[in-house]
Order: sequence, then C-alpha cells, then structure tokens
Amino acid sequence: MKFSISKEAFLDALQQVQHVVSNRATLPILSNVLIEAADGKLKLTTTDLDVGVSGSVEANIEKEGTTTLPVKRLVSIIRELPASEVEVSVDGKNHASIKCGPSFFKIIGLGEDEFPPLPKFEDSTEFKIAQSVLHDAIKKTSYAISTDETRYVLNGIYVSFREGKMTFVATDGRRLAMVENELEYPASNETDIIVPSKAVGELQRMLGGEGDALVRLSGNQISFEIGDSIIVSKLIEGNYPNYKQVIPGERKERITINREEFLNTVRRISLLTSESSNSVKLTFSKGSIDVQANSKDIGEAKEPIVADYDGDEFAIAFNPEFLMAPLKNLGEESVYLDLIDGMSPGVIRIDSSFLYVIMPMRVSA
Amino acid sequence: MKFSISKEAFLDALQQVQHVVSNRATLPILSNVLIEAADGKLKLTTTDLDVGVSGSVEANIEKEGTTTLPVKRLVSIIRELPASEVEVSVDGKNHASIKCGPSFFKIIGLGEDEFPPLPKFEDSTEFKIAQSVLHDAIKKTSYAISTDETRYVLNGIYVSFREGKMTFVATDGRRLAMVENELEYPASNETDIIVPSKAVGELQRMLGGEGDALVRLSGNQISFEIGDSIIVSKLIEGNYPNYKQVIPGERKERITINREEFLNTVRRISLLTSESSNSVKLTFSKGSIDVQANSKDIGEAKEPIVADYDGDEFAIAFNPEFLMAPLKNLGEESVYLDLIDGMSPGVIRIDSSFLYVIMPMRVSA
Repeated sequence: MKFSISKEAFLDALQQVQHVVSNRATLPILSNVLIEAADGKLKLTTTDLDVGVSGSVEANIEKEGTTTLPVKRLVSIIRELPASEVEVSVDGKNHASIKCGPSFFKIIGLGEDEFPPLPKFEDSTEFKIAQSVLHDAIKKTSYAISTDETRYVLNGIYVSFREGKMTFVATDGRRLAMVENELEYPASNETDIIVPSKAVGELQRMLGGEGDALVRLSGNQISFEIGDSIIVSKLIEGNYPNYKQVIPGERKERITINREEFLNTVRRISLLTSESSNSVKLTFSKGSIDVQANSKDIGEAKEPIVADYDGDEFAIAFNPEFLMAPLKNLGEESVYLDLIDGMSPGVIRIDSSFLYVIMPMRVSA
Repeated sequence: MKFSISKEAFLDALQQVQHVVSNRATLPILSNVLIEAADGKLKLTTTDLDVGVSGSVEANIEKEGTTTLPVKRLVSIIRELPASEVEVSVDGKNHASIKCGPSFFKIIGLGEDEFPPLPKFEDSTEFKIAQSVLHDAIKKTSYAISTDETRYVLNGIYVSFREGKMTFVATDGRRLAMVENELEYPASNETDIIVPSKAVGELQRMLGGEGDALVRLSGNQISFEIGDSIIVSKLIEGNYPNYKQVIPGERKERITINREEFLNTVRRISLLTSESSNSVKLTFSKGSIDVQANSKDIGEAKEPIVADYDGDEFAIAFNPEFLMAPLKNLGEESVYLDLIDGMSPGVIRIDSSFLYVIMPMRVSA
C-alpha cells in the first residue's frame, strides 16, 4: 500500500474519526484506524465496538491496500509534519513509513484481519432527515441526557417515529427536553429507539452541512450516513420511561422573558449558590421577576428582570444549571416560562416545537 | 468603608493578587484578600503565609476602611457584573454589599485583625534591578527548577550577588540553566539566596513594564517592589549545590544550530519516544545532525538538520523535554551546542551570558 496526500486533508480526515477511540482501549486493535486505500480514496474507520465511525478522503493512491495504524499517534505525527505533502507506504508487516520533507517516521500497525468489521445494514428501515433538522433537535435536547450509568436507558436520546412525527426526548429525571418535527416516512417504519450519548456526540460533530442524513435501523443497530461518512452504533435496549406524564397538561401563567438577559442574570446570581444551597429563587411580582440566591456563611445575590407578569406574587426555585442549560442551547430571542404554582414543574417553551420541563426545588424561607 | 470603581480596574487589580491564594487554604482568612480603602486608593493584599502579594488601584473612596473578602468568589462576581461601575460598601460586621446596574450581591468577609501581616523590611539590603533584566533572567532559568519536593533547596532559583555580578541558577540535577548579569551594588551587599518557585512565578507575572524593581533582603525574607506592587516571600534555607563543578570546563566541538529548526525537529522526533525509551539521539556527521528516536513496538523517527559540523562522526542522546526547554525559552536565532563526546554533558550557549548544561543519556544501539 502506498499513497500521497496533503497534510491538511489527511489530518482533517483522521480527526473526524479519532474521537471514537478511547485512550484506554481494551484491545490494541481498537486504538487503530483501519485504512483502506483504493479507487483514489482512503477510507478510514475506527470503532470502540459500540460506536464505529467511517469517513473517506481523496488521495493519490500508488498502490492499493489495507492496514491499521495507531490513530492517536498517527494524528500527532501528521499534525507536526514540516511540509504539505505526505507520502505513506506500508509493507506486508504493517510497518508504515511516513515521509514529509526531511522527516521520516516508521510506525508499527496491526493486520486488518484483527479489525472488527462494522455491522452490515441489510433489510433496514430507512429515514431521510435534513441535516439541519437533526442538528437542531440534538442541540436542543442532548444536554439533558443523564450521565448516571446506573440508569442506562436514560444515557441517550429517545427518538420516536410515530404518526408522521419524529420526537427527540432526553431526561435525567429532574428535567426533560423534547423536540418534535414532522417527518415523512411510511407508517410501517413506526418505531421508538434510544440512541446512546456517544453516538449522539459523534453525530453532532459530523452534522452541519447541507443536505440529508440517511438513517438506517436494523436489529439493535443504527447507522447515520452523511455524504461519505458513516456512524454506526448499538442502540440502548430497554424501556424508556413514559415521558408524556411528566409534561404538565395545563399552565396558569405564561411569562415571556428575554432569553439572553434571563441567562446572564441566572448565571450571575448562581455565583452565590453553594453545594448545600444550590438553587435560585424566582419571585414573580407585577412587571418583574426577582432572581435571588442565598447561601449561609457565604452571602446572597439579587437581581430583578423586567417581565410581562401581571398576577399575584409567588415564588419558585430551580437548580441554576438546569435552568441555564436550555437557555444556552436555544437561539430564540425570547422564551416562555409556563408555570402553575411554586411546587409544580415549570416548562420553558419557544415558538417552535420545543419544550423543557424542570422540577422545582423547595423554596427556602 | 465605601467606594466605587470601574469593573475592569477592580477586576484587573484583584486578578493580580489572587494567584497566591490556594483553592484549599488551610485557614479561612487565607482565602481572603485584605482590602484597605484610603487616600483615593484600594490596597489589595493576599498571602499564603510563605508568599504575599500586594497591589493597589485607584478608586473613588467615599468612606475609608479595611476588610477582608473571599478573593476567588469576589473575582467571579466582579467578572460577571452587568455594568461598568461597581459600588461596594462594607458594614461593621464585614458584610460587603456590591451594587452594579440592577445586580446586588452581599458577601461575608472576615475581620482584618485575623489577616496575617506581611513582614516588614527594616535594615534591609537593597538591589535595584531593571525589570527587563529580571524578566529575562527568570525566563531563561525558571523552567529548570526542580519540582521534586524532597530536594527542597532545588525548588527555587539560586541568586548570587558576588563580584559585581548577579547570577541566576536553576537545576533539577539532570540539567542546569544559568544567566549572569553585571549589576551595581556595594560589596557589603554580597550574598547568595534561593528564591522559591512560587515567588518566582508571582514575580514573573508582575514584571514586564519599564523601570526598575527594588529588591530587599532582610533575615530570611525577600521583597520585590515594582511600582505600587509588592511581592514578599520567605527564602529557601539550605545549601545550594556547587553548581560550578557541573559546568564542563572545556569543549571539543561547537556546533551552531538554528534554534527554531532544532526545536521543531526535536519536537517531531520526540513523538516516537516512549516511557521506556525516552531519548532522542543526535548523530553528528559532516554538515548535518541526524535526529532520531526509536521505540520498540511503536516505531522510529529520523530527520536531518543542516549544521556546520566538520569533525568525526559521533552520537549523543538527550531527554527530548530537557533539550527543548531552553530552545523554547530563548529568543535568539541561533544557539551553540558545545560538546566533548557522547558521554559528557552538553552545553547550550548563546551570544550573551547564558548557559544550559544537559546530561546525556545512554545511547542505545
């Protein structure tokens, strides 16, 4: 195997696939990237057995072939190379020689036979989703994914394809984010899946261009094809909790708030929260919200925000991180805060189909 | 106590003094900054009992007074304030009220009586040193300070004022950096001291302007006065090793090398070193140096550098980090590499008074 390629193109392509590889891979082969040189292209593939990523890049292939090389080390070498043209040749023992300007590197790879193949998707169910829609739905929900490994069904985004809709839900039990979009697919495609957090992260990294992503489901596997790139992942198996019962069916008050102002105020006030007193209190009175925090032995903070509230005075307290998370990830100028009373869950909404349910905390006196 | 000040000026001044404060201060008062408001200025002081820093900033003082406030929390609040003018008032119980635009914060301080005073410098020995000279000497030596706490005399820069010179030395036993400058002082001032690493770091942060720094010595304390700012530190007590005997008295070869090219090549080649094989080998032959690394199971790297060498072929190996450290911290276009043979210490020199001794490593075959 022998090819030449520009340093920047090779580096970009390797960086696209290297995130899947853990620094403490259980098997040596899982530290490696599978490189397949053929048809004027390099196909690069990595996997941690749960999630696999594959991409390709044009190269000047002098001799076709396949090998695997340690991807982190390869990236560190390519990044430091002194010139723009890189020449790579790999011998029958998977020893790769890398030449660039006056530099010469030899690194030792492993045979491609050891590399676990990505699963095939035959007889798969397919969905076509605009990249922009997928990107937006992930951005607005993924921060609410639970990181508690004992609750593994919550360690991903629940995606439901039902009644001509595609619904994304993430929750950690104390807050829940949901985005719903219309999507065309045959009724026979209806299903619900849970996409693990790591695959969501890889997907988000790869999204961003124009055009569609092709999603395939087969058995307990999902794949996302975006142009030449593919992400393949196991799905999380288990029953996702009935999230619908968490969403308040009514609201008593709808307060419109400038998103950025709200975010900045909560961020400031949260500086006076502490581990033992980790809540900010919102007190609603005519025309304004007072945002407050109070920590014994540390101090207190208070700031009013102008709001279009016109009801009786009442207060509700939230975990400041949970309050800020959607505000950071939305782009809208204003958000709606829908409330019932100081003890019931609050809901943040925007003009499009998004909602965020947040549990209140006990208001201290 | 009551004052108003611009957010940026207050933040700058606090950031100048906050580094001394550890996140895990042993006494609560050591987390605090002493604030003295008088004569149109705030004087800010922090200490960890070993090193103390003090600076001042102009403010509009409405009521003079003194207090101490938790400095990290204060910095985090001031940084996030929404407007440019900050009003601070502190009551008799050291509760500080901070107002800025619509924001109100109250934080709880401690009485100034608890704050350990910085040592006084009476009957001190004084030196006047140009800030630029001090900055340069520290930059060229401090990276060689030992971080091995069991060798505490090496945990600082040795500074010797002898025979009209000021000599800075830092070593960790495997490499040694030295800078020597002429300096005017009375012969009665002659002395040798060891300035601890933390004080060196604070000093480097504060240096950079025009003009002189005033250095005072008294007992086992040193102070550096730079404009309105002061750093006070304990000195390290103990006998610094006789560094002069480490410096080779002769040289057999002097090779002139482009510093940046040398640095970049060693950085690249060092990518193929490993924990068990952490050396780069330099092989000198007519007109060039071959820089090489070799790690079993990983691979090898090789790159030639053009050099004005004209002698017999020989090789020497160095720890790549130790080789790169001076190259990163010097500004000169070329450096001299003075060598005797493959087993004797090498010396890096430049045209001004600097030298760096580096022990060779065993050359593997």
